[in-house]
Order: sequence, then C-alpha cells, then structure tokens
Amino acid sequence: MNVEMIAVGTELLLGQIVNGNAADIGGRLALAGIDHFHQVVVGDNLARATEAIIQAVDRADAVIITGGLGPTQDDLTREAMCAAAGVGMAFSEEVVEHLRAWWANRGRDMPESNLRQAEYPAGATLIANPKGTAPGLRMRIGSAWVIALPGVPQEMGPMLDDEVIPFLKAHAGGSTGVLVSRVLRVWGEGESRVAEALGDLFYASVNPTVAFLASGGEVKVRLTARAGSREEAEALLAPLESEVRSRLGRLVFAVDGQTIEDLVLAVCRQRGWSLGTAESATGGLVSAEITSIPGASDVFVGAVVAYSPGLKARLLGVPPALMEEQGVVSEATALAMAEGGAAHLGADVVVAVTGSAGPSSGGAPVGTMVVAVRTPEGSRARTFRMPGDRERARAYTATAALHCVRLALSGEWW
Amino acid sequence: MNVEMIAVGTELLLGQIVNGNAADIGGRLALAGIDHFHQVVVGDNLARATEAIIQAVDRADAVIITGGLGPTQDDLTREAMCAAAGVGMAFSEEVVEHLRAWWANRGRDMPESNLRQAEYPAGATLIANPKGTAPGLRMRIGSAWVIALPGVPQEMGPMLDDEVIPFLKAHAGGSTGVLVSRVLRVWGEGESRVAEALGDLFYASVNPTVAFLASGGEVKVRLTARAGSREEAEALLAPLESEVRSRLGRLVFAVDGQTIEDLVLAVCRQRGWSLGTAESATGGLVSAEITSIPGASDVFVGAVVAYSPGLKARLLGVPPALMEEQGVVSEATALAMAEGGAAHLGADVVVAVTGSAGPSSGGAPVGTMVVAVRTPEGSRARTFRMPGDRERARAYTATAALHCVRLALSGEWW
Repeated sequence: MNVEMIAVGTELLLGQIVNGNAADIGGRLALAGIDHFHQVVVGDNLARATEAIIQAVDRADAVIITGGLGPTQDDLTREAMCAAAGVGMAFSEEVVEHLRAWWANRGRDMPESNLRQAEYPAGATLIANPKGTAPGLRMRIGSAWVIALPGVPQEMGPMLDDEVIPFLKAHAGGSTGVLVSRVLRVWGEGESRVAEALGDLFYASVNPTVAFLASGGEVKVRLTARAGSREEAEALLAPLESEVRSRLGRLVFAVDGQTIEDLVLAVCRQRGWSLGTAESATGGLVSAEITSIPGASDVFVGAVVAYSPGLKARLLGVPPALMEEQGVVSEATALAMAEGGAAHLGADVVVAVTGSAGPSSGGAPVGTMVVAVRTPEGSRARTFRMPGDRERARAYTATAALHCVRLALSGEWW
Repeated sequence: MNVEMIAVGTELLLGQIVNGNAADIGGRLALAGIDHFHQVVVGDNLARATEAIIQAVDRADAVIITGGLGPTQDDLTREAMCAAAGVGMAFSEEVVEHLRAWWANRGRDMPESNLRQAEYPAGATLIANPKGTAPGLRMRIGSAWVIALPGVPQEMGPMLDDEVIPFLKAHAGGSTGVLVSRVLRVWGEGESRVAEALGDLFYASVNPTVAFLASGGEVKVRLTARAGSREEAEALLAPLESEVRSRLGRLVFAVDGQTIEDLVLAVCRQRGWSLGTAESATGGLVSAEITSIPGASDVFVGAVVAYSPGLKARLLGVPPALMEEQGVVSEATALAMAEGGAAHLGADVVVAVTGSAGPSSGGAPVGTMVVAVRTPEGSRARTFRMPGDRERARAYTATAALHCVRLALSGEWW
C-alpha cells in the first residue's frame, strides 16, 4: 500500500499557511507502516486539482486529499473528484440535517452557502466530521482509493485516526507489513562527520535503511526496518543499531522521543540536585527550554538573565575587574556566573552562558559562545564557535549548554 | 513566468520536519508577482526526484528545488539534476577552497565527505552560499530554469532574496504584473471573531483578496492585490485597508514584518526607559523573545526567572505571606513580582508573569495566566485564560505579556 497526499489551497501556495497537515499525516502513515512517496500542493483551481488526482490514482494505491471541502466558492475538491472519476454530484439530506443542527447548537442561522457541504460525488461514502461541518469523502477512482478530508487540522486529525488510517490498514492486506523506526540522537559532531562515520552502512542500506537529519545543533540518525511483524522488524534493526552505536560511541545520547531536556531533568532528579541557569547571550532560552517540560519545577528553581554587564556584577556577583581583564565573553566570566548563580539561586547545578550572538560589538568575534557548568562535584567551562546568524547561534548554544550539563552530571565533563 | 517548487527529503515525507521552506518561498514569489501553481515533495530517492524534475520543467518556466545538496550520501539533488538534464558531473576546485576555508575558520579539519558539495551538474552555474557550505545550482533543463538551494532555511533565505528572486524577475519579462500584500497584525481577539468582523469583505474579495491566519496568539489579516504596477496594486489595497482598520480599530497593532518585540523595544528606546522581565510560568520565554532582536541590549537589562516560590521571595522580594494569602497565581503576586523586579534588575519597565501552564498542581486552574506591568507611570495586572496545552499556553502568554507592555507604554493600559 502506498499513499500519495494532495493538499488543495491557494493559501498554501501563497505561503500564508504552512502545510502542517502533510507532516502530520506523513508521521501517522509511517507509524502505521504505510509507504508514502509523493506530496503535491495545488491551488483552488479545478483543472489543476483534477489533474493532480488523475496523476495520483495512477501511481499510488490510495490518495489523501486535504482542503477544499469548505462552504465557499473556492472550495473545489468535490468538483475535482467528480471530474477525475467522471461522475456527477449527489446531495445528502442527512448532511443538511447535521449542518442545521450544528448551527442551531451555536444559536445561529446557517448561512445558505453551507449547503454546498451536503454535495458529494455520486458513489462516494461520507466520513463523519465530529469537530466541524464538512464531511469527509471516500471513493474508488481508477485502481485507487481517494479520501478527502477537511484542511482544518483539528477536524482532520480525529477523522484520520478514527477512520482513514484503520481503513487503509484494513485494505493494505498482508502486503505492507510493519515499518519500525528508531532515531538515535547524536550531539558533539556535525552531520557530515556522522555521515562519514556511517557512510558504508548508508550505501549498503536497503532494509533496514539509515538516514541523517541535522536538527537544532543535534543530528538524528534514523534506522528503519520493514518486515512482516513488529518482532521481525525489531530483529532487523537490532544488529544495525548496535553497529551504529559502536561507531558513534558516546555521541549517541538518547533514543527516539527522549530530549536533552528530559535527560538533564531526570539525572538531576535522580541525584537529588536542584538546577538553575545564569544566562547572557541566550537571554533565557536555556531556562525556557528546560521549563517547557511538564514537571520541571521539582528540579528547576529559576534563572538569572544578566544581559547587561552591570547585572552580571549585581545579580551574579561577577567581579567587574574580572570582566574588564578577561572579557565579558570568557571562560573566567562564565565560571564566575555559574558560581554566582549557584549562590544567588540556591541551586546545586548551574549552567552559565556568555557570548556574542551578533551583531558585532567590538568584543569577542560573533559566534563565540562560552558555557560553564557548576555542580557540587566541580566546575568547568568550554568555548564554542557557533554559526554566524543570531537565531541559530542562540539555539545551538542553548542545546550545547544542556549537553554540557549532561556531561558534567555523568562525570564525563569534556 | 510560473514557478514550480520541489522539496527533496525523506524527513518531509515521514513528517519529521514541516515544509516551512515551501511557505517561505511561496510568500516571496507572491510578493514578487511571480505565479506559482504546484509544489511537490519527494524523498531521498534518485528515480522519484529525477521524475519530479522532468515533470516540473515540462509544466513550469522555472523550478526551485530545496534540499538534497548536503554532504551526505542521501543528498541526491545533484545526481537527479544530472539525470534529468542528461549531463555528467563536474567538480569545482573553487568550491573546495571555499569549503576548506569554511572549516579552517572553525578551527577544524574538513571531513572528506564534504567534497561532494564541490560536485555539480556539468553546465550549471554555482550560487554562492554565504551562510553554509553547499552552493546553490542553476541550469537550463528543457525549456525551464532549474534552481537548487540548500534545505536549511537560514542558508536558503538569503540566497533566495539576493540571487534567485532577482534572477526570476529579470527573466520574467513584463508578463506577470505585480502582487502586493499587506499584513495587518491583530491582537486581542481570536481568529473567528476577526473573521466574523470581516466576513463580508472576505466573501466579496476577488482582487484585492482578504485572508486570515492565526499565529502564536496573534491574528494576521493579509490583503493582496494584483495589478500592472506596484502603484496600481497599492491603489487597490488602500480603500480595503482603511475599511479593515476602521472595523478592527485598536486591535491592529502593526503592519507587515514589524513584530511586537520590535515595537516594545522601539517605544522603550524612545522614552529612554530600560526593560526587564520577572517570570515564573513562562520560564524565561518573554526574555528569550525580546533578546532574539539584534540590538535589544541597549534597552533590555535582564530577567529573573523565579520558578520556585522561594526564589520569588528571595530574588524578587515577594512577601511569602502575600503568596500564601492571595496565591502564587494572583494579580497581587504578579504586581509584587513586577515591583520587585524593577528594584532588583534596576529596570524602569518590568513585565511579570505568573500562572499555571499545567499539569494541574492543585492551585489555580490550568491555563490561568497573570501578567503585570510596572512602568515609572504606574502598574497594573491582568488575568488571562489560555488554551489547555502547556506549549500553547506558554507561547500565547509570552505574546500577551509583550502586548501588555505595549499598551502600558502607550498609556492605554486595559
């Protein structure tokens, strides 16, 4: 079973919204072990939407269309399905009743334009939409199933989970098996070094496959196996995973959905240590990332963002003479920020960041970022050269700061 | 001139990343008045990438490919262009020098795998990549221009603006006209209320058009006109813009690319006031957003993230009895945080946030968020009910906090 996705909507072409539905559906298809090779986006244009459907039913076993089911004149998915299938339009009194009830529930009269949503290509099955007014559609066109869903993610999601994925799995027969993926999360080397270390595995890979993805300063190595059952797929993955792990060693820090924030909080919790941050160049980003995790409050006490040099002295007790002598962006200043942070925040573990994210201020070169970690067992600083643009330099540094905490907590330092 | 977009990357099909490049490029093509009818996504698969190029050059005047230019073995865009054009691979010594310099700058040896990025389809022109290692490519295939750019948005963006859009405009002739868009940024009402206020304008809209987009707690209202010249398009936009402004009134806070962070910093700068934050539930997010703006340091001094109640007392001077009596999530506590923040940070303007982002802790209901602003002219607090999920509640609250600062600074309070 392989599925093609078509998104219909001029707002997508104009960049007014991002096609998050494609990522959402793609992820759920992968989890269900269903292949997915093409995504197409067309505007609210009958000819191009029809052509896209005709091409898709020719190369895929099933087609999922999102968007173009609304009540307005530019919602053309129903018409495009009629044109691709060579059928006329039918009308559902049942949908009319549902629409009237939906509006009545909200204490409002239904705009007459809404009746368009009761139209459907003759022969199609309607798919209930519990969260909105436009029903989904499912019909056979050529040798493929064509399934149309509303473009609103909150309506589309439940219909996909409750109706479409189960339908596709049921109609996949035994032909598709199961796709099992494992993501090894790597930090400490760039994508190209990781790819080099695993190059031969990549070239040899058919099943299981190896792929790389750079992501916010980390690299994800994805191993994917296809087999008749979950167990067989796991058995295919196991030797590849251990080979990759043996080559990358300590660069692999986590698996699948586990993030560096999760890890740092878990280790602090385990050792009974509280955590805080003392930030300058990252401006609170490290603190914001840690506190994005529910339950962070049992470990994380708080942060001092000392953006001005005056505050580094006042709130973190960094001696002005030290900053003068060594520079605000220096390992000495970072270490003093971490130590002062521990005292002022009353935290056992403090990670401090100072650096120059740009634009150039005449001090340290733009992209110079210094991280210091202080734990009850010791402290150490490390200097990074980050990419030149401000946004990435800050994001990569926040990630690096968390990894420095992880290494310090495990006694590996650097 | 009409452009087709092809994104190459298995991670897109698997839903591991969202195709933000497509929206980004689509928006810029629209601004440049260049038509754009199809977007296609294929995985890291040579046959399918090649087919996509062959189809695109057949139906478009220019094709923009993103992704697949990196150093790893699964980066296949160069090979697919060779296959589609029927040419061999050439090798650029100049790119090798650029690559070696790039790595040397970072004090590291270049992994040999990086040499892949010096390969290019014979006959292609290389496009400099100031932010990264992989150059872009431009060549004629069939009757169309094919332009390949890196998938990393921070590298792709400048190449698009500086090279690709000007090139496409120069080769478009006078045939396309101009598409002019204006985005009115709105805060204070949800998308559906805004859509309701403008519903008839939306339904009537052909040229200029009206569209809505909810985005991080704000709503963007986009007005777009097409005409023979920029002046004619502006003339079409003007009456629509003033109608929308008269209906939405003070809800419209900015136009086009101006963000709430820009605005807040500009007003502080103008009044000669320094700015700081005192955060609990947002965990440093407000500070991180303010400091994402280059040059924030002339206004922004720093932040105290007092995540634990103990730190609210110690670092912000909030009386424990007050928190006990009124609750940690209360307007009284938020006001005390703002006042204490002003004293401890030495800032003229302080915005404080306390709240419950979830999971439930037995205190205030999840989603209760309190913002207080203190300026030299006075202080006030405001309570918000935010959506239930933690991530959105935090992001919307950070946005709301900045808007409260804007209103306070302009004397509008609430």
